[in-house]
Amino acid sequence: MSDEAAFIAALRNIVSHPGARGLLDDAAVIAPPVGRELVITHDMIAEGVHFLPSDPPSDIAWKLLAVNLSDLAAKGAKPIGAILGYALAEDPAWDAAFVAGLGRACDHFGVPLLGGDTIALKPGDRRAFGLTALGEAAAPVPDRRGARAGDLLWVCGTIGDAGIGLAIARGEIEGPRKLLKAYRLPMPKLKEGQALAPLVTAMADISDGLLIDAARIAEASGLSVTIDLDAVPLSPDVQRFGTDRQARMRAATSGDDYALLFAAPESEADRVQAVSAASTRIGSFAAGSGLLIRDRDGVLPTPSKLGFLHAS
Amino acid sequence: MSDEAAFIAALRNIVSHPGARGLLDDAAVIAPPVGRELVITHDMIAEGVHFLPSDPPSDIAWKLLAVNLSDLAAKGAKPIGAILGYALAEDPAWDAAFVAGLGRACDHFGVPLLGGDTIALKPGDRRAFGLTALGEAAAPVPDRRGARAGDLLWVCGTIGDAGIGLAIARGEIEGPRKLLKAYRLPMPKLKEGQALAPLVTAMADISDGLLIDAARIAEASGLSVTIDLDAVPLSPDVQRFGTDRQARMRAATSGDDYALLFAAPESEADRVQAVSAASTRIGSFAAGSGLLIRDRDGVLPTPSKLGFLHAS
Repeated sequence: MSDEAAFIAALRNIVSHPGARGLLDDAAVIAPPVGRELVITHDMIAEGVHFLPSDPPSDIAWKLLAVNLSDLAAKGAKPIGAILGYALAEDPAWDAAFVAGLGRACDHFGVPLLGGDTIALKPGDRRAFGLTALGEAAAPVPDRRGARAGDLLWVCGTIGDAGIGLAIARGEIEGPRKLLKAYRLPMPKLKEGQALAPLVTAMADISDGLLIDAARIAEASGLSVTIDLDAVPLSPDVQRFGTDRQARMRAATSGDDYALLFAAPESEADRVQAVSAASTRIGSFAAGSGLLIRDRDGVLPTPSKLGFLHAS
Repeated sequence: MSDEAAFIAALRNIVSHPGARGLLDDAAVIAPPVGRELVITHDMIAEGVHFLPSDPPSDIAWKLLAVNLSDLAAKGAKPIGAILGYALAEDPAWDAAFVAGLGRACDHFGVPLLGGDTIALKPGDRRAFGLTALGEAAAPVPDRRGARAGDLLWVCGTIGDAGIGLAIARGEIEGPRKLLKAYRLPMPKLKEGQALAPLVTAMADISDGLLIDAARIAEASGLSVTIDLDAVPLSPDVQRFGTDRQARMRAATSGDDYALLFAAPESEADRVQAVSAASTRIGSFAAGSGLLIRDRDGVLPTPSKLGFLHAS
């Protein structure tokens, strides 16, 4: 049996949705959502950029699904299914561990694998994978472009955990397993996204870093945004690495948080807190353009590198 | 502007569907089809496997879309949109030509680009791209697994054109531009697939080769299939390279035809011909398993290599 045949046979073990057609057909076929919008996202992850060659393959599979589900979460969407684009690298044990991890992740999030495709890497090629996630959401589906002047900026979740987790994974520092896990096994905020969607004017997930993703919402909405750095929520584990200006800027410019970042009118503040106690006000939008960062000591210079640009 | 920013800016020029949200959001959002099934496919193409490094980037973009639309065609589906997974290789001119070609292909097939993602290749990495195509189709959507004993095997389109086109592209032989075009710019049979879908019991497209794709339908349906090699339709251009047993076997084992291969009851033969004059009876299904190839001189030995396995 070729590596590809073995891989597809292993994938069949984690596929049960009838729409996947046993991975024997050219395409997946499902009943579309009724009375809801269809949400589609496709994110790729590459070795050395989104994951380390030393990361366990099962964790890489989890991350591939999770980063796509995080995009669905930011649209308030409920996942429908996932389609895998896989690169085989003549390493059947690695592939088997990846499939097992993907199966666990699909089970955990209740997302059926519906199909996909494989290509064969040549020796020396880096691993890279893609996944398309489909979801359904109530209209109007939150857009990155919808923030309005006067809206508050909120974050749901904590910031900087995965950034420190990456440094731990690279062996640069010692730190708790919980932060390593935040880097390797991100948790998309699906329930929170669905609860918040009716209240927000704009929403996105934080993949490249709080500052850059906030700046993107502001730019897409034609506004300026001010961030109160002291208000940015840091987990107790992250706080142990410092809570001063420098530590907070490090958290706000590191990637892979997969927290939700959203704009909502001040009048919705109580309802935001009611549906999502993990949400924190960290700033506001105003007319104009650009990003302003403040803390108790005043305005900070905006760093030239606002985040971790995964594509570059 | 980074290569990625320039690429996305160029992509924006070929994006007009509101569901793409100007490529400014985390996800695409569209109204799902009403009263129809949702069909989803994801095919990847890699340099040296599905295309040659010397192929024009605009043709590679066309092929990426076309091979996915061919999967939709085999399900009788009408395309709804496409999501791109793109690998940037520090070659802005190449990227620009790819985007221009993708725009032309999307226009030609009336398929809106809805979104996507990019990753950056490192020097030495081969190019590889993925695309997810969404379509809508009437239920029941043809399945590879549905052929029944006694059904006829049909092919819609001609066989072997792209195989000779590949040899021309490689500089191995001289031949007409039309065959080179069959390799580089395949035409998915969308209209034919939609017309045939109500009449067939199973349908797939031919991507790896007639023999292997026929064997896959038989295996998925739990049947044997017999192919009459003399009946396999060869275009006039392909016939000029020979019509003997060897030439026909070469055509039937070469890839990239993107013809439709389908099973239909004998009672539907007249209706098949009525809706698709380009369809030809080339064999039949029976109880049992395996592939039998015959021609006027008798039974042929089944070759060990039934087609062009793109993934291996």
